[in-house]
This record gives sequence, C-alpha cells and structure tokens, in this order.
Amino acid sequence: MKLEKLVGDRFKERPADCQVDSHALMIRGGYMKNVANGIYSSYMPLRRITRKIEQIIREEMDAIDGQEVQFPVVMPASLWQESGRYDSIGKELLRFTDRNGAPMVLGMTHEEAAVQLVREYGQSYAKYPFMIYQIQTKFRDEARPRAGLIRVREFTMKDAYSFHTSQEDLEQYYDKCHKAYERIYARAGIPEVVSVKSDSGMMGGNVSHEFMLLTPIGEDSIVICNECDYRANMEAAENIVENETEAMQELTKVHTPEMHTIEQVCEFLHVDAKKSMKAVVYQKNSDDKYILIFVRGDLEINETKLTNYLGCDVHPAVITEESGIQAGFIGPVNQNADCIVLFDRSLKGTTNLVCGANEVDYHYTGLNMEREFPDVEYVDLAKVVEGGICPCCGKKSLTISRGIEVGNIFQLGTKYTKTMNMTYVDKDGISKNPIMGCYGIGVGRMAASICEAHHDDYGPIWPMSIAPWQVHICAMNLDKEGVREVADTLYENLQNAGVEVIYDDRSVSAGNKFSDADLLGVPVRVVVSPRNLKESVVEVSTRDKSLMEKVPVENAEQYVKDLVEKMKKECNLVK
Amino acid sequence: MKLEKLVGDRFKERPADCQVDSHALMIRGGYMKNVANGIYSSYMPLRRITRKIEQIIREEMDAIDGQEVQFPVVMPASLWQESGRYDSIGKELLRFTDRNGAPMVLGMTHEEAAVQLVREYGQSYAKYPFMIYQIQTKFRDEARPRAGLIRVREFTMKDAYSFHTSQEDLEQYYDKCHKAYERIYARAGIPEVVSVKSDSGMMGGNVSHEFMLLTPIGEDSIVICNECDYRANMEAAENIVENETEAMQELTKVHTPEMHTIEQVCEFLHVDAKKSMKAVVYQKNSDDKYILIFVRGDLEINETKLTNYLGCDVHPAVITEESGIQAGFIGPVNQNADCIVLFDRSLKGTTNLVCGANEVDYHYTGLNMEREFPDVEYVDLAKVVEGGICPCCGKKSLTISRGIEVGNIFQLGTKYTKTMNMTYVDKDGISKNPIMGCYGIGVGRMAASICEAHHDDYGPIWPMSIAPWQVHICAMNLDKEGVREVADTLYENLQNAGVEVIYDDRSVSAGNKFSDADLLGVPVRVVVSPRNLKESVVEVSTRDKSLMEKVPVENAEQYVKDLVEKMKKECNLVK
Repeated sequence: MKLEKLVGDRFKERPADCQVDSHALMIRGGYMKNVANGIYSSYMPLRRITRKIEQIIREEMDAIDGQEVQFPVVMPASLWQESGRYDSIGKELLRFTDRNGAPMVLGMTHEEAAVQLVREYGQSYAKYPFMIYQIQTKFRDEARPRAGLIRVREFTMKDAYSFHTSQEDLEQYYDKCHKAYERIYARAGIPEVVSVKSDSGMMGGNVSHEFMLLTPIGEDSIVICNECDYRANMEAAENIVENETEAMQELTKVHTPEMHTIEQVCEFLHVDAKKSMKAVVYQKNSDDKYILIFVRGDLEINETKLTNYLGCDVHPAVITEESGIQAGFIGPVNQNADCIVLFDRSLKGTTNLVCGANEVDYHYTGLNMEREFPDVEYVDLAKVVEGGICPCCGKKSLTISRGIEVGNIFQLGTKYTKTMNMTYVDKDGISKNPIMGCYGIGVGRMAASICEAHHDDYGPIWPMSIAPWQVHICAMNLDKEGVREVADTLYENLQNAGVEVIYDDRSVSAGNKFSDADLLGVPVRVVVSPRNLKESVVEVSTRDKSLMEKVPVENAEQYVKDLVEKMKKECNLVK
Repeated sequence: MKLEKLVGDRFKERPADCQVDSHALMIRGGYMKNVANGIYSSYMPLRRITRKIEQIIREEMDAIDGQEVQFPVVMPASLWQESGRYDSIGKELLRFTDRNGAPMVLGMTHEEAAVQLVREYGQSYAKYPFMIYQIQTKFRDEARPRAGLIRVREFTMKDAYSFHTSQEDLEQYYDKCHKAYERIYARAGIPEVVSVKSDSGMMGGNVSHEFMLLTPIGEDSIVICNECDYRANMEAAENIVENETEAMQELTKVHTPEMHTIEQVCEFLHVDAKKSMKAVVYQKNSDDKYILIFVRGDLEINETKLTNYLGCDVHPAVITEESGIQAGFIGPVNQNADCIVLFDRSLKGTTNLVCGANEVDYHYTGLNMEREFPDVEYVDLAKVVEGGICPCCGKKSLTISRGIEVGNIFQLGTKYTKTMNMTYVDKDGISKNPIMGCYGIGVGRMAASICEAHHDDYGPIWPMSIAPWQVHICAMNLDKEGVREVADTLYENLQNAGVEVIYDDRSVSAGNKFSDADLLGVPVRVVVSPRNLKESVVEVSTRDKSLMEKVPVENAEQYVKDLVEKMKKECNLVK
C-alpha cells in the first residue's frame, strides 16, 4: 500500500474534544471519524487493526471448541419479553417498531438469541456441553458516550455463550475461557491485563470476572491486594474495617450550631471521622421512597452495592421539608421519617460515635451501636479505601487503581434457560434447564486500550500482531541517487514475501513523513535516504525506539523479514 | 470438527413454508434459523460459507485498490436528509429515534456515510481516484421478505464506493470492478452469472448493471438476445415492435355489447390484438391523479419504466364514476377525463386500430395514429416479449429468463456529492463535485444462489472454494476391525495438513450418516468401513458424484490432499 493513496487525513493538533490519548491519536492519525454521538466510521488502518484483533479472538474461541455463528442485529421484542429483559433494561436497549408496527430491539447482547438458536437442538444431555459465539455489530444507547472507542453506542463485539448440564462443567469451561482470554490479550500485545471479580449487573448470574487494563484513564475502579492475588471491581470488593472498642459513654445531645457536614462536626467536637456516623440518603427510582444509609464517617457508599442489595435502581435523594428528614443532622436515634434504614457493616461494634440528632444544630455523642441498636442487620455498602483490609489475606494492603474493562466472563446459571423455557432430558430422564455462561470482548475498545497502553506523544506504538501494517518504508528525496530504485525494490520484495508494507514515496518533507509514520504506529520502519545510500545502508528502526540499525542494502530484505518474524513471536503469535 | 458436536438439527422433511430449494435445504441442513420475518440466525456451517465468500470478495476488492473501511449500521437521519433520501425513500428505510429523541436510520446502503467519511479528505484532485468498501450488516425493511436468504430484511453486504474526477476515469474503474465481480462469481463457483444493463432506481445515476444468476426461481426478468451480447433487466430493456402499414380506413364507431376486455373486442370484431389499442390506468401515489396509458393490444406495461418516466410512484387505478373514465371502453378519441395521457411507442405508425370509444358498449375501428394524433410524443413503457426485436442487433431473437440478482454496479455521477456538498479543487483551480460509482454484493443471497445453482434433492453441492468444510469423513461401524484407527488417523493427519475436515464418528446408521453428509454438501467424502478395510481401501467420492474411487489406505491422505488442491484450482482459487 502506498501511503499517498491512503484515505484519511493525519494532522498534528490534538482535537479539543478528545479527553484520552487513544481518542486523540486515532482522530489525528486518520483511524476513525465521528458520525454521531458515540458512533464512528473506521478508515482502513483501524479496520485492519480490528480485523486482526477479531482473527486472534476467533482463533482462541475456536481453540476452546467454540462454533462461530451469527445472530441478528435487529431482533423482535418478543424474544426479550420472554427473558423479561425487555422491561427490566433501561433506555440503553434501543426499542423501535418496524414498518408493520411490530416492536423490535437493537441487539446490545445476545443471550436471548443464543437460547432461541439452540433451544430445539439442545434437548438431550448428550448434546452438551457446547459453545457458540459471534463477532457482530451491537448497539447500546449509552447516555454518555465518551473517550472515543472506549465507550461508544455502536460497537463490534465477540460474544460467546456456553451451555452445560452441571455447574461443575460450567466452571471447568469458565476456567478454560479465562485462559483463552489471557492468551487473547497476550497475543494482542497487552499481557498486563488482569482479571478481577465483578458484579454481574443486568446479566444475571453469580460469579463473573472483568478483564482490566490498568490505566489512569479507565472508567472502573479496581481493588488490588499487594500481598495476595485478590483483585476485584470496586462494586464487588468486600469492605472490611477495624473498630476500636472503648468503654461506653452516655448518649448525650450536644449543640453543634451551623455544623452541616460530618467533617465540620468532627472538627468542632475534636473527634476523628472514624468515631462518627454519617447518613447518606437515596431515593428509589420507582416510587421515590427514601433510603437512609448510615455509614462510618470516613467512608463512602458504593451505589452499585446498594442497588444490588435492594434489587432496584436508586438516585441521590432530593430531601423535601415534608419528608421529615432533617438534612445535615440525620441520625438513627428517634428517626421517624418514612424511609428504609440501612446500616453499613463499618458500624458494627462501634462505640462512642458522634451522629446527627434529627434536630437542627444538634448532634449526639456517645452513640454505641450494640447498646442503642442491638438487633440491627449490617450490610456491606461502603467503598473500599486505599490501604484497606484485604478480604482474602487480611492485611492492610489494598490499593485502588483505574482500569478499562476489555472483556468479561459470566456464569449465568439458568436465568435465561428458565425464563425462555429451554430444557433437556438428562440421563435420569428428568427434564432440566441447561446452565449457561457468557463471554464478551469489545473489539474497538480493545483497539483503543492497546493504544492507551502503547503510545507516546507522537502516536500509537502498535504491537506487531495487530498493527495495520508490519513495515513502514520512508523514502527520502526520491529523485536522488538510486533512492527510488532501492525503496521500490524493497517494497516489492517484502510484499512478495508476504510482509505487509506501507510505503511512503511522497514528495513531502522528512518531518512530514516521520510524523505520519509515528501516527500510523507501524512497528518496523525502514528509511531509505541519499545519505544512507552513500554508505550503502538503509536505516531500520522500531516504533518503540528499542532498535535502530544501519543495515547494508543487500541484507535489508532478509533483515526486515527476520525482524518481523521475531516481533511476531514476541507477541506470542506463533502458537 | 466432529459432526457429533455440530450445533444445529438436520432433518428430512421439506418445511412447508419453504418455496425455494436453497431455503428448504438450508433449513433442513442446520444452516440457519428464522428469528423474525426476514431475519435469520446462522449456524456454524453457513457462517463458514459466508466468511469464505466475504474473503473472496475482500481479496478481489483489495486487488482493485479498494480500502476496507467500516461505516455504522445506525446513522443519524441528518445524513440522509442531506442527500434528500430521508424523504424520498419509502418504508424500507427503517426510521426511529434514540433515547434523546434524535431521529436515526438503519443503514440499508451507505452512499451518505461514504461521502461523510471522505468529504474532507478528498479536497484536492491529487487525492483521486480512490475506492473504499466495507462488509457490514444492513437492514432494509422489506414489505415481503421471501425465499429464505434470497430476500431478507437483515443481511450482510459488501458495498464499495469509488470517487473520480472525470466520467472517463469512473468508466475505467467501473469496467475494472465489472471484471472483479466476474472473478468473484467464478471463484465462488458460479461463473455462469451474467451481467445485464439495469435500471438505477433509487440509487440515482445513469449506467448500471446487475449480475444475474439465471434460475427459474429468480425474482427478476432478464431479456437476453440469442444472436448478440445484448442483456438487460426487463425494466431497462427497450421494447421495439414492427407495425404493418395499411391503407387508412374511416374512423367508425361500432357497437360492441358487453365486450369489456380488448381480447373480447378483438375476438368479436375478428381482428388480431396487434391491430388494437388498449388502455392501462394508473394513479399517482401522491395525489391519486389518473394516468391513462395507451399501448398496443398485445403488450403489457412495465411499471418501473412508467415510474422512471414520471419520476414518481404510482399504483394501479381504482376507477370511480366521478373520474369521467369509461372503464372497459377507454379510448384516445374525445377523451375528456382529467388525467395524464401517455402513448406507448408500440403505437407509432399504427393504422386501422380498434380502440375504445369512451362510451359504454362502443368501440372505434379505423383509428390511424398519425392521422388522429399527429403531434403525439411516444414513450417506451411496454414490456419486452419473448421473440421480440433486439435493440442491439435488430433480430427477433429476444428470450426472457428469470434470475437472482447477486450483485450490482452503478455509475452514480454527482448525485450524492452535489447534494452533500463534497467538492475538490481541480488542476485548473476550479471547485468541482467528484463523480461516484457504487458496487454491491449481498453475501447471504450469494450463498443461497450458489445453493440454487448447485444442489440435488438431497442437499447442496458446495463448490470447494466456499464449502463449510473441504472433506467429510464418514466412519462406519467404529467398533469393528480398525475402522476407528484408520478414520481417526486420517482425520488428524488431514487436519494437521491444513485440510478442513468434518468427521462423523457417531454410532448412527449409514443411511443417517450419508443423508447428513448430503445435507452438509462437503465436496469430498471419505468412507471408512469394515467392508472397505477388508480390501485395505477407503472410498473417496465427490459430492457431485463425478468421482468415486477406492484408494489404498496408505495413499488416502495424499490422494485426498491432492484432490482438494485440484478442486480448489478448478474454482480458480489459486490466483
């Protein structure tokens, strides 16, 4: 491919609306173009990258006995009504009617379609286990698309569905798929991706893992133990605290004029925030009923933990006068408002706390949970904090990192097979629901994540396994001393040897050529210039700057081929 | 792949709702499953076939300098408003609103998206020509999906868009693409596909061709000359007739009691239908205005020719009493109804015709067009008939065949670049609109067409180039005399040699195995059975029954590999 013919503009200025580097570089490098909010077209370099990622995924899915199928993008609403998700999922599920008024949806995931496809096939235990997968366009009507390909509305995803006759068999396959995912990330050049336990959210089921690329620009918070293997998504990480027990003091009402926040009160009363209790107030989305959550003063509530516990969606409360809730002075003693009251586990065993008195300008001191509320049920709702206690090894060794989710795997159980009435006859002649797992990877997000993990100020540094081309030839001053001849020959010979080459033989400045090459991020670069040819060499370098060699012209082709092969192997491309 | 693990059911009975063979065989063979009207999921065998077709298309598009890109499935309505098609296209364009109420469409073709992607890039003549293409899901909300994958609502299509600075350059590229299409069909096993001139319809532009697989189940009528190269779609085929000139008779009103059709009148008056004029009445969709078309009594009107001439949609008329039209006795003389009157070219130079007198139970005889209507403008609106005159060589050599459209190419001109304001600065410094071509192939329809062209009563006969697998091993009585050992070894060795093998080692009857093998249509079959092994041979045959050989066990692997290679070459797979 000659760079001169490559469709797409490359430019230097970082677009103002790009918050993350991968987005900025992919716009600057002519990889993609915005069509609508969260909807992009891809130019050739990105399409080549995504096709290579798709092929790596396909090979690894095939290697664990996956059968590639294809589900529709447009599905009848009836399919989603069967599973119940037509009603339970919010506006992310795009609903519309076709020309005949039939209600339809755009597929954002395909559990329903998978069950529909195999419902008749899987009627005997002898057919199990099996896994089907597709690589297909999906649409999720996100409220806030952001960060280029990290969070979009339309995306390409590999989604896989496995069917089993026992939990043990699912777990075995789940592990196999976990390992396949590790191979996928390694081959695509991001072996640093880690898996973390996660919340299953709208997918249903219990055990699930997210695969995270740790990066400050990630949307997710991940809790990692420095002492053991524990890793979990913030919303799935159990929060454990220690509370010192003191001799109980009297419950005493104190005047705390104009002290509205727990920080102000603690400062005013000279106590540590850990010796206080604060209230966080939410409302149910369905009926606006108030939810009062009491938590130790130094901690925050994790909203996902809360919604999972309640089984419904909530929003931060708007506290009205009629509610009976005394904002700024909320406490558990004599709490008479019509609301749900929850106590976070951080309060268990606490003594001599400061808390609100449900009266303007008054707090209590000397609140002792076991004395005042002996029968309370504690719930784990608080966010884990940096330096917190690991639920696995018990050490104060938790750190919190940001990450991009580049894949997820779920043990779904029988959620879909039950609701959609998929059954098989087991060995014992009894009719049962198969147990499912599902396994997703977003292709575009993976491309963006690789770019986040591998770039410098000048452009992406694509791993050999997924780079749009393997070799970039920059020929300088083509009218001089054999430059064209050497560069043309190298281009032809490398292409004939099956190497993917992009060839820049334009009449533009060297600066222009190099900045374009940096933006295309091709792993191996060959510079053919009059100065080098005087020494009968070409300059071979890698985009990551780890190598820069002058290679005699006559050895150049072999040298480059060997280098490409070596870099392929480093990506673990040779299986 | 072991057949035992292949997801999907195969069965013998032809489903009642399958009108065409490809549909019936693909349902019976476990290739696909209906999800909604005109919407299917694909099982693994079909996905493997479509992926191979996609790869052939991709290679041929790349070979004519195509750059693979990707456009969105979901597009903002604004893009289609720019081109004007948001309003001009009917209900096939699925329109809906997103969560924020923004109007969106599902892509049924991507001219708009293509222009949007390259509008900034293509600002200088030096960037031209270029071609971009994608292979992507599309949705067309067809009123009447039918015939399985032949006419669906959701489908995968390769759509390509080329941009040029001159009509000559477009024509050159158009020819190149025409040849690429011929290679695609040849490589996919249907070299018999022919290209025919076609009507451009909603795509705009002038010259266009459809690629047709001739088959009785096709939806399109194709006019083919037996004497020269002329081929055209019915709606694009010029109708030429001869009319004998006679001495003019008097225009005479005659009583034709109860004679409502032209056939009845001609019989009653003992004249040939060619010596009569009939009226066909339509109404405009927009305002129900009547359109009277007069045509020679033996011919029919082609509705597409009519809508193209009028530039608007029409429907067969409902003739009311108030219309002033005298149904059954309509004629051109003293025609006073408020309507558009058109004369088909078949009437030019006609003498002494019978026609309606606009009066119940009366017709005229002796109508002479040049005498009665000397200034009339004739329009070509009639359908070509079998044995008609070729517009190219002038012989009475036209035949009419049915065909499936398996691809199309269009010279679009500046329709989209003008409306969407895409311009470039030419060598002479003047701003101009680029000239476009577009080129489509439906992947699923192509798979179905190949099946139509290559099948018997028992299943598809897939060409080697696109078959789901290359070799099908049927092992019989696996518990007997080394059958498993021989079959397993052959399976392993062929797979290791890169041959795609499906292996049937189930404990089912031979009949069962053979009927499944027939339904999967794999080109090479190897039968390992105790009877054969007694002679130390295996049986190798082809699905098309052209070959049936007993091959010594020790030569089997090499023999099969050679056979696969030979059949690949026959499909022109080796470039």
